[in-house]
Formats: sequence, C-alpha cells, structure tokens
Amino acid sequence: MNDNFDPRRRQVLLGSAATLASTGLLGLSPLALAAETPLPDYVNWKNPEALVVHSAQTLETRRDAIGTSIVTSNEQLFIRNNLPAPPPAIVADRDAWTVAFAGVKNPRSMTLGELKTLGVTTVASVLQCSGNGRAFFDHEASGTQWRTGAAGCVLWSGVPLKAVVEALGGALDGRPYITGTGGEELPAGLDPQSLVVERSVPLRALEQALLAWELNGEPLPLAHGGPLRLVVPGYYGVNNVKYVRQVAFTAAQTDAKIQASGYRIRPVGQGGAPDQPSMWEMNVKSWITQPLAQAKAGRVAIQGVAFGGAREVRGVEVSLDGGKSWQAAPFVGPNLGPYAWRPFVLIVELKPGSYSLMSRATDVEGNAQPEQELVNERGYGHNGWRDHGVEISVV
Amino acid sequence: MNDNFDPRRRQVLLGSAATLASTGLLGLSPLALAAETPLPDYVNWKNPEALVVHSAQTLETRRDAIGTSIVTSNEQLFIRNNLPAPPPAIVADRDAWTVAFAGVKNPRSMTLGELKTLGVTTVASVLQCSGNGRAFFDHEASGTQWRTGAAGCVLWSGVPLKAVVEALGGALDGRPYITGTGGEELPAGLDPQSLVVERSVPLRALEQALLAWELNGEPLPLAHGGPLRLVVPGYYGVNNVKYVRQVAFTAAQTDAKIQASGYRIRPVGQGGAPDQPSMWEMNVKSWITQPLAQAKAGRVAIQGVAFGGAREVRGVEVSLDGGKSWQAAPFVGPNLGPYAWRPFVLIVELKPGSYSLMSRATDVEGNAQPEQELVNERGYGHNGWRDHGVEISVV
Repeated sequence: MNDNFDPRRRQVLLGSAATLASTGLLGLSPLALAAETPLPDYVNWKNPEALVVHSAQTLETRRDAIGTSIVTSNEQLFIRNNLPAPPPAIVADRDAWTVAFAGVKNPRSMTLGELKTLGVTTVASVLQCSGNGRAFFDHEASGTQWRTGAAGCVLWSGVPLKAVVEALGGALDGRPYITGTGGEELPAGLDPQSLVVERSVPLRALEQALLAWELNGEPLPLAHGGPLRLVVPGYYGVNNVKYVRQVAFTAAQTDAKIQASGYRIRPVGQGGAPDQPSMWEMNVKSWITQPLAQAKAGRVAIQGVAFGGAREVRGVEVSLDGGKSWQAAPFVGPNLGPYAWRPFVLIVELKPGSYSLMSRATDVEGNAQPEQELVNERGYGHNGWRDHGVEISVV
Repeated sequence: MNDNFDPRRRQVLLGSAATLASTGLLGLSPLALAAETPLPDYVNWKNPEALVVHSAQTLETRRDAIGTSIVTSNEQLFIRNNLPAPPPAIVADRDAWTVAFAGVKNPRSMTLGELKTLGVTTVASVLQCSGNGRAFFDHEASGTQWRTGAAGCVLWSGVPLKAVVEALGGALDGRPYITGTGGEELPAGLDPQSLVVERSVPLRALEQALLAWELNGEPLPLAHGGPLRLVVPGYYGVNNVKYVRQVAFTAAQTDAKIQASGYRIRPVGQGGAPDQPSMWEMNVKSWITQPLAQAKAGRVAIQGVAFGGAREVRGVEVSLDGGKSWQAAPFVGPNLGPYAWRPFVLIVELKPGSYSLMSRATDVEGNAQPEQELVNERGYGHNGWRDHGVEISVV
C-alpha cells in the first residue's frame, strides 16, 4: 500500500478479497497478492491494485484488471523503462521541449509548441513490450517475467510524423530507416552507445507514426515518455521512443546496442546481431481475462482481448477443451481501428468440472496464433495460444 | 490540494502555472484557480487539477482539461449527484447487488452476478447534466452554474437491457415507459416521492439502454453509481439512474418529484408540471477547448468537441469572427459510435488581434446548434453557439 491509497480502491480490494474468501479462492491466483510491493514514487499515481511491481522500472497490469472496455487507463497501464526517467523539470514547460529532425531536406529543431500547429491526430493502439509472455517460455529467458500484462490499449494524440516531414521538405532519398533517439540522461563514464535508447524502424512505419503529447486525453505522463514520444502503432513498445529528442531518416540502422544486438530474435544460447530479425511489427495475439480460476456452473461469460498487432484483427475463437474444438467469440464495443485491441465475450453453459480455456485470434491477412511460441533466446514475441490458456474449475 | 496530490499532477500544475506566467495569462482564465476547493473525500481519487468543485455533490471538468482523445478518464469526469452516495458497503461484493424487474412477463430480482451472464456490450456515450451551460443563461437560472464541464464522453460496459427483458419473457403490453429507481438512502421523516431518484424514459430507449457495471474498463465507482447503473445513451444524465435497484416497465411516468415537476422545460417563472417536455434526448452541441484566452500569432490549432446527443454528429464548423463566417473543422481520431463525442481540430493562420471563436455542430438529421439557447426557467439544454464561444487575443 502507499500514501495515495484511496477509499475507492480499498473498496475494490475488500470486494475482491471478500469474493475470493467466499469462493475459497484466496491465495490460489498467482497475481492475487500483486500489490504487496509498493509502487515506486514516480508512478505513485497509478492504481496499486491493478499492477504487479516487478521492479522500479517494470510494472505489469494484472490479468484480471483488464475490463470489458477497450481503453486501458493511464492508472492501469504497465511500465517498462530501459533507463530511469529524466527529471520532472522536462515536463514543467511542455511546449518548450525541443526535438531535432535530420535526414530531411530542411533539417532543423522544433519545439513541441510548434509541432502542435502542424497537425493533430488520435490513434488507438496496443502498446506491448517485446517480452510480454516471457514467463511462459520453458527455457527461462532472462528479463522481466511478464505474463500477459506488459500490454495495454491506449489513445495517443499528437502530430502525424508524415506532416512534420512534409513541413521539412520531405525525407532525403536513400534513407530507409526512421531513427528516434530518447532523452534519458546517460550515466557518465560509460559508453553511450551501450545505453542510449535509440531505435530504428523501417521507413514504411512513416505511414502510421506520430509524435504524441497526450495519452488517453491527458498530457503524456513523464513515466510514459512525456512531454513527447515517438509512437509507431503496431510496433513493439521499444520502438516507441520516450522523451524523443531526435528523429532522423537514416541510411542504416543505429549501432546503439539496443538496436544492433538487443531486441533480436535468435536461437537459444546465441548472441544478438544485426542480421537477426528485429522486434518491429507485432504479431496476432489474444488472451482470456476472465474467468481465470473458478466459475459458477450455468451460464459463464468468457472474456478476453484480441489484437492483430501490425494488422487489424479479424476474429477470435475460444476453446473449452484445451484446443480440441473451437467456437467463434464475438467482439464487443466499438472498433477503434487496426492497431487497437478488441474485447471479446463468449457466453457458454458450463457444467461442474475442469475446463481448459484457450483463445486464438486471426488477423485480416489470415495469420492465426500458433499453438506454440517461436522459441528464442530472450523470450520475445510469445503469441502461442496454449501457454496463454487458463485452467478453471466450474463448481 | 488533498492527501492524494501526486508529483505528476504537481508537474502539470507547475507546468500550467509556468506557461500562464510566461504568457502573462496568470489569473485571466475564470477556471484557472479551480482546484482551490479540495475534493470531497468520496471522490478524493479524482484529479484535482482537472475539476472545479462547486459543492460536495457537484464537480465540473475544467474546459481546458479536455484533451484531444475521445474518452474522458474517470479521474477527470464530472460529478453531479442528487443525493449523497450510499455507503461503500454496497460495492464490497458487487456481484451480490440485486435489482428487481417489474412490468415484464416473468418479474423477479436478479443479482449483478446473474446479469453478467446474460450478455455484455460496451457503448461510448456522452454523459451530460441537463443543466450543463446553465451559467450562460441571462436570467440567473437556479442550480449549479455549470459552464461546459458537466459533460464527458465515456465507455460503459454492461448488459443490454433488451437482453434482460427477453430473458424475463418480454415487457408487458401497454407499458410505454421504462422507470428506473435509484438506491440512494432517503432521509427518514420526509416524503420519499419528493426525494427518490426515480426516472421514466420512453420505451424507445430500450433500443440502446444498458445496465452498466464498468466505466472506462474499471468497476463502476460508487460516486458514479456503482455497482450498477441504468445507462441510456443519448439521454441527459439524470435518466442514468445510479445504484439502480428496480427497473420497471410502466403504464405511466413515475410521480416522483424529479420526474413530475423536475427536469421540465418551462417558461421563466413557471412551475414544473408533467405536461412540459422532460429532459430526455440530448440535443446537438459543441464547444472549443483550446485556445481559450490567448495564442501566438502564426499557425494556431483550434480544438474542441462536438456531439449530436441522441443522434450522431455529422459535422462541425468554426467561426473566427463571432459567427459571421464559418468553415468546416475536421474530426480527428476514431469514431466511437452515434452517442460519443468527436474531437475536432482546425488549424488556421492568425495575425495578432482579437478573435471571437465559435463552433457550431450539426447532427445526421440536419439539426444544427442554434445561435441562442431556448430560454427556460431552470436553465436546461443550452446548446446556443454564441454563448459557448470564446474571445481570444493573438499576440
């Protein structure tokens, strides 16, 4: 618990505890005691009951905290920062934040205040860490042991990067990468290239990239990259550079460690290298959010979220028998666009017994979640449906 | 300030203050010093910088707190309660909440737990108090002097009322009203009918009504009617009965004071009566959210929100000259459906001088905001575009 603990949240907690106790579930859920580690100070405005604190820089949204709505609130959204956030002074005068543009016809710096006059858009997108689902790998991949909660669906508002580039005369020819540089302070005495958060994405991402200053309609919190973040809808979290201080169109990918050897898909035991696939476009994925352990016999609402990653999700199926048979589960609520996730609800009649619930999404290009993950050294991109299933008992 | 005041919000406040000071605006905005009155305890989890506290039961969202995104967060959403909220005990075990259904073929009570198995939907809708804009009337209409902030656009999740009614055999014939009764505790010794929050809406509202248990993906907070609220998208706030304990299909409207004489459109000086129009379907409306006082010469992004009320909004125009000329302003971001509001952004080139900014929305049936409001005793339903305009100076 922390100082910001409030009555509403206490009620929710008491309610959950009472329910767990009455159904005999107390202690059974691996995430039930999530809030035992207090929230770090810089995110003490978040909802402690919705989060699992892995470390000061890594906080996961509880699987059972995702409701039926489409948007994940700022208070529930996960945190994964590669470096500590810069000092709060950088959000004292947001419009004065400066970002440099390079690799364009007329390179120069712009303030956030100027960027706000070039165009405004709002895009809903899933923000997801490359390592979401790492806990489900068998080989104990190193890194935070995320389960499902290094992901959320949020609304970003800002200027389309394309509009900025047009105002600067367009990108230079022969520059196939967009390279964003983060504004984190780097410890002195260490090689900057080993620490700097600098990521390159392919030029095709210009179609949907934006420079965002709002998250869910509020000024982008410092912990999430405020005052300005490079957002690439459909791409893994690491490509969404926080406190962005430079955007460059480049001939090659950056040689920063986080790009050159980090976030690469490679066989277990092998080191990272630039010729391995980088964690760019996200793959199709889904998971069940309730029930997670127990349900009452009779009609049961099976709920979850599904998204296509870089391509819109087309549909999702649910299995009650560990993947032997499947039935389509309808999406509910408005469609917020190709990069958003969609909640699904399937109502079924269940007799007492044990059930192995699985979900399997398919994107508009026909890519379906595989049964098993692609095994890789660092435990990235897990979208295998079997590991994301849950065993429940119906009583 | 309150105990929950947090660093992020302090940064926002300091940032705003710094900006205001640097542009010479400090003290000019009527809402700039909004947070001087502390938040009441039962809503101390809200964002104090986003709200104007009129009283313990009436809190308004600041006009400048509405960002570009579509969804108003729980922390920013206004509060207008006719009676104090019931004790927090009612959200300790949410699924045990019971609601009675009457005027159907098989009347009975259901728990929230049972309702959750009948169907799940999510609807985005504007929640707006009937008196939003009351401060703009000339005749000093009694009641909270709301300006623009007794409104927000939120995501409700729950079961369609239609699905519940079907499960109960359907509504009885000759019952043209849906009457919802709130679960507030009524003070002893007073006439219950003069106090009870019981509202009737026409049967046609069954098409979109739902019984909601989630607000923006989180369990519906007590202050907003949790554990269960009757939500009628497109209808004024008062019809969305909190802590709903009965839903009845009735032959007549309830004779509760809040229905019989309250929330009626009538000439100034006249008392309320059942033959006057009731505050049901909302009308088309829009307002500018920025700039509100000053802007820098050059390109300026004029932003606001527009909604059609009971009908989808089709478009919005902006005037820079007090309504003499108009130009269409594009909507930005995904369309969350007919009952949601849509942010708009118009980027214009402005020279130094004074400007009278106005916005005027039109719904899909061609209804446009009038220049002036319909004058009425209690100051309801103000959607006149002139009063919602803002005077700005460009320097």
